[in-house]
Amino acid sequence: MAGNSFGTLFRFASWGESHGPAIGCVIDGVPPRLGLTEGDIQHWLDRRRPGQSRFTTQRREPDKVRILSGVFEDLTTGTPISLLIENTDARSKDYDAIKDKFRPGHADFTYWAKYGIRDPRGGGRSSARETAVRVAAGAVARKVLAALAGNAATVRGALVQIGPHAVDPDRWDWTEVERNPFWCPDAKMAAEWERYLDAVRKAGSSTGAVIEVRAAHMPPGLGAPVFDKIDADLAKGLMSINAVKGVEVGAGFAAAALSGESNADEIRMADGRPVFQSNNAGGVLGGITTGQEIVARFAVKPTSSILAPRRTVTAGGEDTEISTTGRHDPCVGIRAVPVGEAMMACVLADHLLRHRGQCGDPPAPTTE
Amino acid sequence: MAGNSFGTLFRFASWGESHGPAIGCVIDGVPPRLGLTEGDIQHWLDRRRPGQSRFTTQRREPDKVRILSGVFEDLTTGTPISLLIENTDARSKDYDAIKDKFRPGHADFTYWAKYGIRDPRGGGRSSARETAVRVAAGAVARKVLAALAGNAATVRGALVQIGPHAVDPDRWDWTEVERNPFWCPDAKMAAEWERYLDAVRKAGSSTGAVIEVRAAHMPPGLGAPVFDKIDADLAKGLMSINAVKGVEVGAGFAAAALSGESNADEIRMADGRPVFQSNNAGGVLGGITTGQEIVARFAVKPTSSILAPRRTVTAGGEDTEISTTGRHDPCVGIRAVPVGEAMMACVLADHLLRHRGQCGDPPAPTTE
Amino acid sequence: MAGNSFGTLFRFASWGESHGPAIGCVIDGVPPRLGLTEGDIQHWLDRRRPGQSRFTTQRREPDKVRILSGVFEDLTTGTPISLLIENTDARSKDYDAIKDKFRPGHADFTYWAKYGIRDPRGGGRSSARETAVRVAAGAVARKVLAALAGNAATVRGALVQIGPHAVDPDRWDWTEVERNPFWCPDAKMAAEWERYLDAVRKAGSSTGAVIEVRAAHMPPGLGAPVFDKIDADLAKGLMSINAVKGVEVGAGFAAAALSGESNADEIRMADGRPVFQSNNAGGVLGGITTGQEIVARFAVKPTSSILAPRRTVTAGGEDTEISTTGRHDPCVGIRAVPVGEAMMACVLADHLLRHRGQCGDPPAPTTE
Amino acid sequence: MAGNSFGTLFRFASWGESHGPAIGCVIDGVPPRLGLTEGDIQHWLDRRRPGQSRFTTQRREPDKVRILSGVFEDLTTGTPISLLIENTDARSKDYDAIKDKFRPGHADFTYWAKYGIRDPRGGGRSSARETAVRVAAGAVARKVLAALAGNAATVRGALVQIGPHAVDPDRWDWTEVERNPFWCPDAKMAAEWERYLDAVRKAGSSTGAVIEVRAAHMPPGLGAPVFDKIDADLAKGLMSINAVKGVEVGAGFAAAALSGESNADEIRMADGRPVFQSNNAGGVLGGITTGQEIVARFAVKPTSSILAPRRTVTAGGEDTEISTTGRHDPCVGIRAVPVGEAMMACVLADHLLRHRGQCGDPPAPTTE
Repeated sequence: MAGNSFGTLFRFASWGESHGPAIGCVIDGVPPRLGLTEGDIQHWLDRRRPGQSRFTTQRREPDKVRILSGVFEDLTTGTPISLLIENTDARSKDYDAIKDKFRPGHADFTYWAKYGIRDPRGGGRSSARETAVRVAAGAVARKVLAALAGNAATVRGALVQIGPHAVDPDRWDWTEVERNPFWCPDAKMAAEWERYLDAVRKAGSSTGAVIEVRAAHMPPGLGAPVFDKIDADLAKGLMSINAVKGVEVGAGFAAAALSGESNADEIRMADGRPVFQSNNAGGVLGGITTGQEIVARFAVKPTSSILAPRRTVTAGGEDTEISTTGRHDPCVGIRAVPVGEAMMACVLADHLLRHRGQCGDPPAPTTE
Repeated sequence: MAGNSFGTLFRFASWGESHGPAIGCVIDGVPPRLGLTEGDIQHWLDRRRPGQSRFTTQRREPDKVRILSGVFEDLTTGTPISLLIENTDARSKDYDAIKDKFRPGHADFTYWAKYGIRDPRGGGRSSARETAVRVAAGAVARKVLAALAGNAATVRGALVQIGPHAVDPDRWDWTEVERNPFWCPDAKMAAEWERYLDAVRKAGSSTGAVIEVRAAHMPPGLGAPVFDKIDADLAKGLMSINAVKGVEVGAGFAAAALSGESNADEIRMADGRPVFQSNNAGGVLGGITTGQEIVARFAVKPTSSILAPRRTVTAGGEDTEISTTGRHDPCVGIRAVPVGEAMMACVLADHLLRHRGQCGDPPAPTTE
Repeated sequence: MAGNSFGTLFRFASWGESHGPAIGCVIDGVPPRLGLTEGDIQHWLDRRRPGQSRFTTQRREPDKVRILSGVFEDLTTGTPISLLIENTDARSKDYDAIKDKFRPGHADFTYWAKYGIRDPRGGGRSSARETAVRVAAGAVARKVLAALAGNAATVRGALVQIGPHAVDPDRWDWTEVERNPFWCPDAKMAAEWERYLDAVRKAGSSTGAVIEVRAAHMPPGLGAPVFDKIDADLAKGLMSINAVKGVEVGAGFAAAALSGESNADEIRMADGRPVFQSNNAGGVLGGITTGQEIVARFAVKPTSSILAPRRTVTAGGEDTEISTTGRHDPCVGIRAVPVGEAMMACVLADHLLRHRGQCGDPPAPTTE
Repeated sequence: MAGNSFGTLFRFASWGESHGPAIGCVIDGVPPRLGLTEGDIQHWLDRRRPGQSRFTTQRREPDKVRILSGVFEDLTTGTPISLLIENTDARSKDYDAIKDKFRPGHADFTYWAKYGIRDPRGGGRSSARETAVRVAAGAVARKVLAALAGNAATVRGALVQIGPHAVDPDRWDWTEVERNPFWCPDAKMAAEWERYLDAVRKAGSSTGAVIEVRAAHMPPGLGAPVFDKIDADLAKGLMSINAVKGVEVGAGFAAAALSGESNADEIRMADGRPVFQSNNAGGVLGGITTGQEIVARFAVKPTSSILAPRRTVTAGGEDTEISTTGRHDPCVGIRAVPVGEAMMACVLADHLLRHRGQCGDPPAPTTE
């Protein structure tokens, strides 16, 4: 209940500080007899790994994951899966100068206010390094999705806005996402972002971003009434990612300006099954999936560590200034793409198991 | 784990269908020796009650709450508080015509897909009637806030957008909120909304809205790392309200377009304590409160039940049409204001107790 | 987390005081489309009801249960089931004389120490009246057992010891259990108990008891490793019943004196399946069911409310004496039989759902 | 919810198999600023370590614990504490001969029935090796006890019965417990056990045991009503230890034979506070501590791995025999003493935090 675990039936307990010996998690509730190797998890970790382009932090970690339990001869056994990732490139000396200052936009002040103590090395527990653990858990969640929702099920993400520059939905192309360093589905916009971010980076500044995540070929009926609505759990999972300030589903905030006629998705029979004629709902009605694509977006604030000196105070109560010279992302939103995917996969895995527990096998996934 | 409870230390289990004999909840974890009467709860229920203006549903329910346990001689005893509200104006016959049709925008299809059965009377469990229970729980949560954060602590909400028409922040006046049927803090915009909503209502249409909720005079240090961040729990609580499609904290989605320099709130010492110079964070850094005002907004989609005929299908698999002639809100977002406040109060009460459990008494609330 | 809920997937939140307006519970997680009427629950409540013989309290309550939600046209809908039982025979005046005294053996002192307040009417929340709610929840749990483990599945209990007088296992006859006021499976011992208890009752004294509960035709594979072992959950469920001081499974405490050869149950193939040759394990190995009968026993202390004056103190800190003249059971253990059955049914229902969630359908129940 | 976590506010997630690379746990909810070093934990692990006398398994593991997170400069930070113990002496070849056979008395059959797969190396997840993790978590729990209940608070255990031979309570001497290889508080009985166990060991047989655990100088008011009674949580915690078949509190099963007069503990004022005149309650009334010593006992079955050939079946469905030639304890109950202490410490730490969360600081511990 101290906030470091996520999920109910598919539940993982995350641990570790940015500059401690390692980070990791324990995943409890994974069904038995699923194929799982370290390589399966490493594949997704590699996508998130820093230092892959000039637009992400130059901290270089191999982020090599080890499976310490719960797998026997490459099959899950139903017992807890303990994952461990060593911290190999923790340059704690970078942080000595700032250990008594509260960095604006960071959790330095709030951890100190809450606990009366904080691990200042690289942000300690509040570092974005923690999101590597989410990606690892998400990789295991994907195994659950494949087993329970079928191999066609996918969870994918894309960056849809950097600073004020948003992609054009009409140019959306999933194959583009793997071709640029931004997971941008719009080739034209990717080129524009490259110029924009170079300028931001050279100015020692930073910028925010919006990420969209989508799950396809999921069965209808996932989610629970009232509080554990699947969109409520998604909102919690995505909002819990470092630096996220907003989450929306389907039409999202734009729905406020719609009329009832234009918002509610109509239904028609086609090939003997109900087919929704649009997807303003983002695949969720009353907190339960419709079988359509599940669509969510989340906003990431600009990196708080920037070159420009910022006014702040010390733990001792004195006014001071701080500027960041260490290795940092001009746009942390970029690396949030695989993290958002992972959280979505975890929420879906959890609700697939919960649905099976309460209701038995879910309805077959619809083909959209 | 079936989704009808909310919170950890301050936890309430909600139950009831729109047209069953009653709705209610059981609140577990309320500290002992807090003053609590039915009148204390009724006060907040009356704010939410339908039928108070021509802009909300004409269903007339006294929404009279009864305390069935957990209170002795007007003091809480530390044992579960059971609250019950009878359903007195449930006109089930209104719904006979539509019991086999899936209303677009409603949860009819998804409950049927999930459970293979649904209570069609007034939306059953997925009805907005369930939110009365949240308001009742929120009233008890406010008692916890007063006891642990002090009597100066407030949780307030206001409607900030209806359809495309948003309030002007410069005209924000909390006293206006109580003077119009919209909880609108901007008198000029309230008048405009009146004209706009009359037109929407006469057209048999509906519109969406955005609500802002704020908590003031809360101590710093509330919230937990990583997953149970206070903004993540707020996001879940607010997204779980019927018809909500988006949630944001502080600068929210607008943060995506900001630079690091303009986003991160600077800090200065004043009167011997750290004072933030702005509040783009919405009072939350790293998921833990700063002591500033906590600010969140959520978007409500337009009412799905409208006069215009909509295309849908029957449970039997036939194309059909449906139009709603019963009593409904042209803008369900209006009545979502007290519900949003209530969810915020519940999240804060929970985290005040959690903080005390793990860390002892919280730092004194700051005076802003 | 304040202790008034039980279970994970089959979870019920209990509320109510002995002399408040009502008691009840909210059961969340019941699968949809199970037949359920008030009569189904009343059947089991009637078994527990006081005042049915001279050996149980003369408080006369009809204990009439109402279903307030979660059931539509006699079928569960998958949403929370709210049950309510009114308190109709609460003679609060009986308790005025003792409201400031801590009754020895009761929770008066401890509730006061914990909460600084207590509802003294009839023991308030700590009254055995609360167990009616467990029986009601157990009745719903039995529906889950029938649906998931098959109609042959049974959960039955019997009283096996009163004071120093234990039944003879060789005379065990389940049909006897319904024929005497003690749920005694041994007709000869039932007659002896009648004489013994009459003497205890006339002396204004009381005595303890041991109850045995058994579940038959349950599938193997129920339970979870390490902490949520099915016997650990049973131990918690049974120990949580008022006045229970001990719980054992299978050979129980007697196993301490056995050798490995005599304790471990051997296995042979018979009719193509593994058959255990004895049941010292009580149907549980490593916390997971074997498919054999699950057998547990629990000890109930003698009723603490007796005629003889007892030394105690007042809340004001003065020595005093107390004797009980109200209506009480000479042996509360008798009425604990249906309560123990109910807790066993709830634990099994929970683990059936949990097993289905994590592993899918359980192995077919074995026929013993 | 898959059963590998324990506690609510002081909560640890355990992981690891007997012959995997390591075992460990993640403890969430530890208050900040408690002194904690690896040595503090190692001290208690060393007490449990196998191979310290001829009466315990000859598997030799250094059981060296590492703290991987949650501690900064020897102080807890409030974030999760990850503990890791490597498995260094895992002779997996010992188990090749039995990987397809279900060992009687072990969880081989039930894990296979539940999961359809099992890690046969040394019992996998069901091995008693897992209890090392409990001892490590218990060591951290003791830090919480010291911080919240005071340094005088103690949790101690002793072996009180081996086979049919029980200690004499009149000879109880806590200083003896550290002087013999059995944690026996009765020097005379320790000598007798030595002879008895030598005979058992030479015969290749095994025997059961009973352990008593006691917590002193705990405040009154710990525990929660109805389900999370402190004795119910203790019962779950102790019953969840490998091979435990029974748990009792205070007078326990003997209470069944007592009269109300002899069972209920009377109270008198002394030195201005209430003092109980006896402790049949074992320090718990209505599930909440009285401030007296908390006393529980649990029974451990005889080691199931013995030299004598036992009849069983194979996973393939054939009758066979099995005998154990590996390293095993003649009485696993001996090493259960520190494990029982650890579970008691964890339950108390959890309820201290829960009490503080709901009620604020607990009453001062009484001095008995």
